[in-house]
Amino acid sequence: MGKEVFLGLVGFGTIGTGIVKLLQKNDELIQKRLGARLVIKKIADVDIDTPRAVSVDRSILTTNVNEILDDPEISIVIELIGGYDYARSFIINAMRKGKHVVTANKALLATHGNEIFTVADEEKVNIGFEASVGGTIPIIKTLKESLVANNIKSISGIMNGTSNYILTKMTEEKRPFGDVLKEAQDLGFAEADPTYDIEGIDTAHKLTLTLSLSYGKRVNMEDIYMEGISNISLQDIEFAKQLGYNIKLLAIAIQREDSIEARIHPSMIPFDHPLANVSGNFNAFQFIGDASGSVSLYGQGAGMMPTASAVVSDLVEITRDMVKGVWRRVPLRSFTKNNIEDINLMSMDDIVTNYYFRFSALDHPGVLSRISGVLGKYNISIASVIQKGRKVNSSDVVPVVMTTHKAREKDVQSALKEINKLDMVGAKTILIRIEDGKLK
Amino acid sequence: MGKEVFLGLVGFGTIGTGIVKLLQKNDELIQKRLGARLVIKKIADVDIDTPRAVSVDRSILTTNVNEILDDPEISIVIELIGGYDYARSFIINAMRKGKHVVTANKALLATHGNEIFTVADEEKVNIGFEASVGGTIPIIKTLKESLVANNIKSISGIMNGTSNYILTKMTEEKRPFGDVLKEAQDLGFAEADPTYDIEGIDTAHKLTLTLSLSYGKRVNMEDIYMEGISNISLQDIEFAKQLGYNIKLLAIAIQREDSIEARIHPSMIPFDHPLANVSGNFNAFQFIGDASGSVSLYGQGAGMMPTASAVVSDLVEITRDMVKGVWRRVPLRSFTKNNIEDINLMSMDDIVTNYYFRFSALDHPGVLSRISGVLGKYNISIASVIQKGRKVNSSDVVPVVMTTHKAREKDVQSALKEINKLDMVGAKTILIRIEDGKLK
Repeated sequence: MGKEVFLGLVGFGTIGTGIVKLLQKNDELIQKRLGARLVIKKIADVDIDTPRAVSVDRSILTTNVNEILDDPEISIVIELIGGYDYARSFIINAMRKGKHVVTANKALLATHGNEIFTVADEEKVNIGFEASVGGTIPIIKTLKESLVANNIKSISGIMNGTSNYILTKMTEEKRPFGDVLKEAQDLGFAEADPTYDIEGIDTAHKLTLTLSLSYGKRVNMEDIYMEGISNISLQDIEFAKQLGYNIKLLAIAIQREDSIEARIHPSMIPFDHPLANVSGNFNAFQFIGDASGSVSLYGQGAGMMPTASAVVSDLVEITRDMVKGVWRRVPLRSFTKNNIEDINLMSMDDIVTNYYFRFSALDHPGVLSRISGVLGKYNISIASVIQKGRKVNSSDVVPVVMTTHKAREKDVQSALKEINKLDMVGAKTILIRIEDGKLK
Repeated sequence: MGKEVFLGLVGFGTIGTGIVKLLQKNDELIQKRLGARLVIKKIADVDIDTPRAVSVDRSILTTNVNEILDDPEISIVIELIGGYDYARSFIINAMRKGKHVVTANKALLATHGNEIFTVADEEKVNIGFEASVGGTIPIIKTLKESLVANNIKSISGIMNGTSNYILTKMTEEKRPFGDVLKEAQDLGFAEADPTYDIEGIDTAHKLTLTLSLSYGKRVNMEDIYMEGISNISLQDIEFAKQLGYNIKLLAIAIQREDSIEARIHPSMIPFDHPLANVSGNFNAFQFIGDASGSVSLYGQGAGMMPTASAVVSDLVEITRDMVKGVWRRVPLRSFTKNNIEDINLMSMDDIVTNYYFRFSALDHPGVLSRISGVLGKYNISIASVIQKGRKVNSSDVVPVVMTTHKAREKDVQSALKEINKLDMVGAKTILIRIEDGKLK
């Protein structure tokens, strides 16, 4: 058939194996669509002896990454090393040698993206990173190409499969966080150290990239407000249900007048919200464009073959350009180089949303009036109250649940600080934000 | 800023107005992303006097389409004429003059696609038609580019907003078909002649294009089995709910061993199916790729600004290529020219699925045994029965509802023919297919 394009793969783990498998299995199909053939010429890994779930000619395996970097026939490298330092220097070396790069390394791009994208521009090479956000779901392409005519009014997404799996299991099977987390670890869905997934860090990597592409901005991940799911209790999941909500770990970005509001935290969303019924380890994204309206995408955010599907779509994309003698058509960050600016993030203090509070109150008469008094002082207006006094003993602590109309975060934090100091309030008040906009 | 690209727009109706509006409103934003400026140089319409919801310089309006065709500065034409003959000859003339084309005309592409795509290849021009399937949702791009490494195992979609609006209203408000249709017509959601929408023809146009892109095939729309929603009654919607299903007008395609199964008809789908809760005039598509797994996309399938968003994404795409001196990167039908074949559609007789029957049976003892006897004779095995005998008068006709395990369409049709002839069966039996696969 047509031209052959030679690839070098670095990191022969799960995803690497999936890519080799997919290129073998659908070789003919891909050629029929692409008009060229993708050929893996070298695979580098520290371990080339352990058998993988795919058979490759031993002669293409190497422990020496320079065999890829120094091979002038290899025009695209696939970086699946993970982590920061080594992956960063490998990618930069590869680009300095004129090679295009495909990577799924969201952590690296979210933290060293500026440097890496700058080198890509200098060297006139392309970087494909579709797999880095939403796995198999075409998030990057949709933002950079399909929604190109739109001012992105808002982004909301369930961007981490592990935490969504845990919340789904907790909700469906009424099992506590620790229990479900342990099961997820045993099944291999969660890492031994689950911090990245459950504390929102992985989500922050993806939101950073998504923000950068939506608005053409340089984003410092550390500036994004981030809260994980480890404090979510069954009790709050049950109260949420009574109120008509599911709890999801959401990444949210909203375009405000002079700034972008961006935050990651557990959110209550109405049952009929497009993201409310995304279950298990699926990811989902909703973009609202000023012309398109709501566009939602839903699929597997991780896994061997889904991720391989996205990586190969990047390989095809770059090959289509190479065949036509073009090194890149679409700017890496969606905006042309001279139009990339630093993002202006709204302070978390200034966000305005609806809130759910669960107070641990002594079952006293007057407690509701004291709490609502403090809320009123800070201009927080109550939308609903659930109080189930057990009246067994007036020194018992009972949950008092309130939802609010729109309120300002700073006022909410001040009010809670004051309420938590009240004698009649026991444990620290639980706060979960409610995203009630009927964003359909 | 950068280069200017001149466009000619033919058809200044709702969508045309939306495109002009969007290019005016987001002019600067689009330039920042594209690095070039999209300029509408001429707009042709038979009516250039009625004011539109956007202001344009009168000098760019013309009733003479040749002012666009003969202008060598215009490199992309936007065809919004609709219909077949005139649109077809306009598009072909434009391509013969070396102009690229962007169109939302699914009816034309589904019926004259072969001819139009052939001319485009001859003239080395591109045709953008993202808006023709799923409006603002990036269906074409996802199939042609993001899922490029996948063997598409199945497609299911709610591809027509009008019929989905009607079914949603019937379900939510328990109002009969005719009533809701009239309201939709009064509100402008349905045409005075609603045939295209409610009888599945518009869906068939979209499925034809989707099939063509998924499998690289020439498809004759007439060969696709098609059934609309005009026979759906409230009674069946209610029984469906009892059984755990919503009724949707689905387009379905499944890859079988030597052929493609493709059909359009009302389907019962489980409440937790990704398409079950798509409401109102939204469209949704689910693709299952052998590597990607399930990928679902959801958004507005029609409307002024959503459609304009998709049209402008095509304009940008073509411009990105032009700027680099490339006339096209991705094959029009997803497969390269020599790999396009005639599709081999499975006969409707041979499909195997689950069925819902509603028999109108006399409330006699023995009726159930007679009906199930006939079903058994044709190897149709019953999964569940709902019989609500009213026992008022043994000559009353009562609904008997049955669902089946997997059965073959030919057997089902033969059995129903025989059952409909029974003395104890009144009106014709209602058949609705059930898509029970947990395609999540």
